Amino acid sequence: MNQSTPIINHYVALVKINDFDESLGFVEEIANNIIKDLELNVVEKISHLFSPKGVTLAFILSESHLIIHTWPELGYLHIDLVTCSYRSQEEFGKSLKSALVEQKIDHVKIISVKIGQ
Amino acid sequence: MNQSTPIINHYVALVKINDFDESLGFVEEIANNIIKDLELNVVEKISHLFSPKGVTLAFILSESHLIIHTWPELGYLHIDLVTCSYRSQEEFGKSLKSALVEQKIDHVKIISVKIGQ
Repeated sequence: MNQSTPIINHYVALVKINDFDESLGFVEEIANNIIKDLELNVVEKISHLFSPKGVTLAFILSESHLIIHTWPELGYLHIDLVTCSYRSQEEFGKSLKSALVEQKIDHVKIISVKIGQ
Repeated sequence: MNQSTPIINHYVALVKINDFDESLGFVEEIANNIIKDLELNVVEKISHLFSPKGVTLAFILSESHLIIHTWPELGYLHIDLVTCSYRSQEEFGKSLKSALVEQKIDHVKIISVKIGQ
């Protein structure tokens, strides 16, 4: 790694859930679980409830950002996590799995976004 | 495309700039240019100034999100744009180019993030 390049650790997850919970509280619970498990630090938080459905929850972290969008009508949850200090994809996957342990998961896809390395 | 899958249009850009402007105003100008050119709609906005350097500016959009992080000490700017309606990579690249027209650009890298298609 070039020391003059920032560390950009970027994961995106797309989750299909049956019996989708449309509430902001559900999304907050998932976010809080990921933040706690990955030892991330929140500096700013905003959320928005879309009409008729859909939630966006965004955190600026000391380590960059975490954003979750939902499409309840389709049963989808999208997570965008960028950190400027290393977290493994396995750690992220485990934190997501534990956050969703009580949900009826149809499938989960996680990808690592590579730019600048 | 499967009609039961949300449209997730995701671009990430990493820009290296010489004589980097550390201000929030600089980042806001870039963001506003992209938002205007791509006809995006802002519903929430937050920013954070890191110590000793670095700015994060985050927008929740009707179309999903736009987040910019800077590493002034390294001369880097990172842009994360997710939209649930289509914008081409060319359109995004053009809006970024016009936003940075007065900057001394070292290089620009843009990637398209594919998940769920």
